[in-house]
Amino acid sequence: MADLNETHDPTRRSWVEAANAPDCDFPIQNLPFGVFQSPGRAPRGGVAIGDMIFDLKVALDAGLFSQSAQAAARAACAPTLNALMALPPRQVSALRRDLSEVLRSDGPDRRRIEKMAGDLLVPMQQASYRCPAVIGDFTDFFTSVDHVTRVGRIVRPDSALPPAFKHLPMAYNGRTSSVVISDTPVIRPRGQKMRGNGDVEFAPTRALDYELEAGIYIGAGNALGTPIPLRAAPEHIFGLCLLNDWSARDIQRWESVPLGPFLGKSFCTTISPWIVTSEALAPFRVPAAARAKDDPLPQNYLQDAADRAEGAFDIDLSATILTAAMRSKGQAPARITLTNLNTLYWTAAQMIAHHTCNGCNLQPGDLLGTGTTSGPTDESRACMLELTAGGKQPLKLPDGETRAWLEDGDEIAFHGRAHRDGFVPIGFGACRARIAPALSA
Amino acid sequence: MADLNETHDPTRRSWVEAANAPDCDFPIQNLPFGVFQSPGRAPRGGVAIGDMIFDLKVALDAGLFSQSAQAAARAACAPTLNALMALPPRQVSALRRDLSEVLRSDGPDRRRIEKMAGDLLVPMQQASYRCPAVIGDFTDFFTSVDHVTRVGRIVRPDSALPPAFKHLPMAYNGRTSSVVISDTPVIRPRGQKMRGNGDVEFAPTRALDYELEAGIYIGAGNALGTPIPLRAAPEHIFGLCLLNDWSARDIQRWESVPLGPFLGKSFCTTISPWIVTSEALAPFRVPAAARAKDDPLPQNYLQDAADRAEGAFDIDLSATILTAAMRSKGQAPARITLTNLNTLYWTAAQMIAHHTCNGCNLQPGDLLGTGTTSGPTDESRACMLELTAGGKQPLKLPDGETRAWLEDGDEIAFHGRAHRDGFVPIGFGACRARIAPALSA
Repeated sequence: MADLNETHDPTRRSWVEAANAPDCDFPIQNLPFGVFQSPGRAPRGGVAIGDMIFDLKVALDAGLFSQSAQAAARAACAPTLNALMALPPRQVSALRRDLSEVLRSDGPDRRRIEKMAGDLLVPMQQASYRCPAVIGDFTDFFTSVDHVTRVGRIVRPDSALPPAFKHLPMAYNGRTSSVVISDTPVIRPRGQKMRGNGDVEFAPTRALDYELEAGIYIGAGNALGTPIPLRAAPEHIFGLCLLNDWSARDIQRWESVPLGPFLGKSFCTTISPWIVTSEALAPFRVPAAARAKDDPLPQNYLQDAADRAEGAFDIDLSATILTAAMRSKGQAPARITLTNLNTLYWTAAQMIAHHTCNGCNLQPGDLLGTGTTSGPTDESRACMLELTAGGKQPLKLPDGETRAWLEDGDEIAFHGRAHRDGFVPIGFGACRARIAPALSA
Repeated sequence: MADLNETHDPTRRSWVEAANAPDCDFPIQNLPFGVFQSPGRAPRGGVAIGDMIFDLKVALDAGLFSQSAQAAARAACAPTLNALMALPPRQVSALRRDLSEVLRSDGPDRRRIEKMAGDLLVPMQQASYRCPAVIGDFTDFFTSVDHVTRVGRIVRPDSALPPAFKHLPMAYNGRTSSVVISDTPVIRPRGQKMRGNGDVEFAPTRALDYELEAGIYIGAGNALGTPIPLRAAPEHIFGLCLLNDWSARDIQRWESVPLGPFLGKSFCTTISPWIVTSEALAPFRVPAAARAKDDPLPQNYLQDAADRAEGAFDIDLSATILTAAMRSKGQAPARITLTNLNTLYWTAAQMIAHHTCNGCNLQPGDLLGTGTTSGPTDESRACMLELTAGGKQPLKLPDGETRAWLEDGDEIAFHGRAHRDGFVPIGFGACRARIAPALSA
């Protein structure tokens, strides 16, 4: 198993009481980084603990960090975390150890620290979030066999799995300017599409979809021309978030031969505000998904025993829908997807090794999407395209409504949770957004 | 014709003598912006004039700019030009007028200014260049009918022109991290490809190609969710450069179904250092390329009379090759492409209107590639894939060498030149790079 240390100790508890609740996403074993702002506090780095945000700048100014954590703490105070991500992992790890010491319920300085709680902690409900990094490039992968097979059957009945799929982790370049933080409304995009009668029209999409993905933030980068070998790739993963790769299927279908997705995706991509670090996720690493007996052996640069043994993450992922009608009746969101990040055919490290095998340079803060995380079961279908067989079999919601695709007012929320016997489960918080109507033409 | 002013006056000459030579790319009518560094000068904005770079910081500190040009001059001094690009066009225009006054041979302050020439001017041969902007997103279009048709016949014999080609300006998201400035070596990429016998291999590309394109820098951006109408699009074009969209055809072919180009392109994109502004190019605007009678009428958001009348740029574009053998024999580069930017099916303004029609936001410094600028004639084929029919008919060079694809040591250089009767021609300088061998595995 990947290196564990005292920050993973399941007996450790926090003096921030909400962090000790069994269903809390942010126990002291998590300590994810994000960028927040609140009345009187300009945008800056923070750490989620229970229902609070720990203000790193206040803590730094109060002298709460040891010498070994100073560099990381200074970088983590900034309004973007790129400088933090660029640091060697051991420096981020040093900050994490200090944070765990400062926030633990039985630390020697607890009394002194808790007296500063009014300054150190900001209630999450008083804060708003920013994109935690300047994302230089966003790459979206396509690594779920089940997603690709189901979509292939709908869109290209003659060839369900692209020829290269089992030889390399397929991907395309995404759009960074329209990556937005959770709770930013998604404006229904207009676009060109071909109607059933063969006419081309320009109109608001009629096939708006979500895609439940994880996002991978790159830490240290590589120089142009110098690939990252698979064995070294895990050190380049700063952490993970949840990512909704919103898709307009009608626009996508019409535009994407032969250059791939463009305007069908670039109108919006939503990310969750908190970055759960590689170190926090170490206990939840599991073997990469099994390959079928007749699957091709990957090329050498995509083969590594350690990656096979613990290259995947055991993280339950879910999507819920809350329609306008459900909201007005005070109903709870309905779960429409339950899947796990460990079902992907390729690991995060393989994505990085492949991405850089041609010499392409990754930079701190670059974002990789895993692709839709569908598994083999019906409940694990992770987008409407799969759930409704391309809009042909509308989804029945608990309140009697149906959905072929998403409608205005629908709110989609993702959650993720990692668990393993003997460890405290950790989560990601919400990746959530509501569909707003198309602007008038 | 687009607005002209005294900076376009063909009788105006500069006291920088080299700027008055008839074949000079940088007469006083051009005044392109770039970012340079030289011994004793940290990276900063400059303007090309003749064989010199005019140092904007030195000029600003010397008080050479009027009040109306101050904001633009300050922004243009920075080590990246994004802040300059974000300004309203009239402010950039004010700076351009002042620059023309300062550099003209018959200005009232000529004597005083020329005395400062040692500080104001840096010989180009003493300088090196930087990417002139932080490129938030790079989008590569695919807008030459002739390129797409020829390539289509080679790669997809059953369908030469993609179905949407004449309905919308097709594009894909490119990679920004590997956009490099002219004269940066291009390291031959490794990658996966399928061999003739059906085996998959990982090896250095055997099908390295150039693509002769123009790059379009976005000036002022748009808010997410708010498209830029076609009529307003020209105001969002800060200026143009030359762009080499290097391509590894074997890697590209294997990976790109159905998500489009990825590692076959992301190893390197070369740009020329100077940005020729929209204002400098105003005299060289010409009608958009004619459409065939049976071509579909574009959707309303892609139709505008002014864009039809002067949406294209009359810019001759050329590519030369200089092989290692030619270099060792002291031979001159051999021209292998001669085309014109006015052959493209879609205009730059249509690219912008389409790019943002789904609400996608463009930002100052974003870069759009036009796509390979091939025209109908044989000499206008603007990549090796077309010139050699996919490597099957090797190109014969003047020294007797042949090339199916580019080899190590080959240097490709692009030049561009706009001309029109009654106006002083202007150019772009070189977009040039040499192929370096693949690094050892």
